Amino acid sequence: MAAENEKPFILMVNDDGIYAPGLAALVKEIKKIGEVMVVAPATEQSAVGHAITLLSPLRVWPANRNGDSIGYAVSGTPADCVKIAFWAILKKRKPALLISGINHGSNSGINVIYSGTASAATEGTILGIPSFAISAATYEEVDFSVAARFARRLAGKILKNGLPPATFLNVNVPPVAEEDLQGVEVTRQGMAVFREKFDIRTDPHKKTYYWLTGYKVNLDQEPDDADDVVILKNKISITPIRYDMTNYDFLDDLKTWDI
Amino acid sequence: MAAENEKPFILMVNDDGIYAPGLAALVKEIKKIGEVMVVAPATEQSAVGHAITLLSPLRVWPANRNGDSIGYAVSGTPADCVKIAFWAILKKRKPALLISGINHGSNSGINVIYSGTASAATEGTILGIPSFAISAATYEEVDFSVAARFARRLAGKILKNGLPPATFLNVNVPPVAEEDLQGVEVTRQGMAVFREKFDIRTDPHKKTYYWLTGYKVNLDQEPDDADDVVILKNKISITPIRYDMTNYDFLDDLKTWDI
Repeated sequence: MAAENEKPFILMVNDDGIYAPGLAALVKEIKKIGEVMVVAPATEQSAVGHAITLLSPLRVWPANRNGDSIGYAVSGTPADCVKIAFWAILKKRKPALLISGINHGSNSGINVIYSGTASAATEGTILGIPSFAISAATYEEVDFSVAARFARRLAGKILKNGLPPATFLNVNVPPVAEEDLQGVEVTRQGMAVFREKFDIRTDPHKKTYYWLTGYKVNLDQEPDDADDVVILKNKISITPIRYDMTNYDFLDDLKTWDI
Repeated sequence: MAAENEKPFILMVNDDGIYAPGLAALVKEIKKIGEVMVVAPATEQSAVGHAITLLSPLRVWPANRNGDSIGYAVSGTPADCVKIAFWAILKKRKPALLISGINHGSNSGINVIYSGTASAATEGTILGIPSFAISAATYEEVDFSVAARFARRLAGKILKNGLPPATFLNVNVPPVAEEDLQGVEVTRQGMAVFREKFDIRTDPHKKTYYWLTGYKVNLDQEPDDADDVVILKNKISITPIRYDMTNYDFLDDLKTWDI
């Protein structure tokens, strides 16, 4: 049994890489309430989705900043990090909480399915660890300390209340000063999608290559409880995400198809 | 308008790579009912999840087998293939159906979230194309023609009935002869998970590396409509999968947290 005054053990991961400032801001804040261990990708893993590395081996090494140990770097994806932390680094010690982030950029609407940040929280949940993912909803420069302080608050709530089976919380914090936040709202994963296009370019050897680009289009309208709608109102959005993706509403109809 | 006797235009993709026998068996069968275009990864993309390639460019080239054109190979993931097909290869021509597979190995239970095969069907759905993913539920050698014939049958049903918003069908075919199939069942995504372990090995330069391994554990019990349970009964499993992962049941409870 943990002693009364023992701090909860908290596993932390991200997808921007172990040296990302969003993770550093989060660690600084979470250390006030917990014993922190960081196991994070060695390099940026944007839009890796829920990838895990099966076809090649993984490497793990202690990472340092200014001579101080900051955790373990992994040559893989965010999901790899959680798996290798749980099964090979922590051994039998089970975290009380997993936090993934702070991601630089929102993970809302359709982005949730491409998000390495969210995939790490899913992995934590599969392993029975209450988990949340947190993102600062901008690609511009941002003060991560606002989201970090909110993460500390939310961590306390989750440690107290727990979470339902197969469910983690996906949090997006608007990029405004703390005093300009308009509150917190429980949301659903919105329907925002990307209008994509491929830049078609020519390389120095005269061969064609394609580079994905595009912009997000919000398909949800006010008043609505969609994540992206709420973020635009400068509110913090919290969406409970469940990795059972069955469309239960369609089961009965599909049974009538006589396939 | 398409002429009465015009065959539907069907986009096909997989994650085992454009030269995989599961895709070849599927193309052979689907050509009987549709005009087929294949846009598939150049190489195997196992467990890439819903990864998309943002940090590097993509290449596309015509692929041939025995001198015959078989489609376009892409230097990316299954999700990349669908996006680049839609936005850069097909131009304005919209497929009536997208089929992803036939994967060699089941995509059921927790595997759905790691599945490149499923991610391609999700991408098709996001783009407004009715889509399904199909897998042969074994890693052993298998006769793909059984699943391919079922895919043709199901394709006809989807072309006729359509699919609900944000929903695709995830199909798993047990690895038995056609006459041994015990029917078709509509299922939910089961709770089967992996009991993982990392093989810890030493490379020729005396450095440690880790390789993910493990086995699947079925957490669902009979009688049940979970995908993995149904497959074990030698039935074809069809699960409707929705990419909105909000846990709607938990929204009200979460609102009482006073965060």
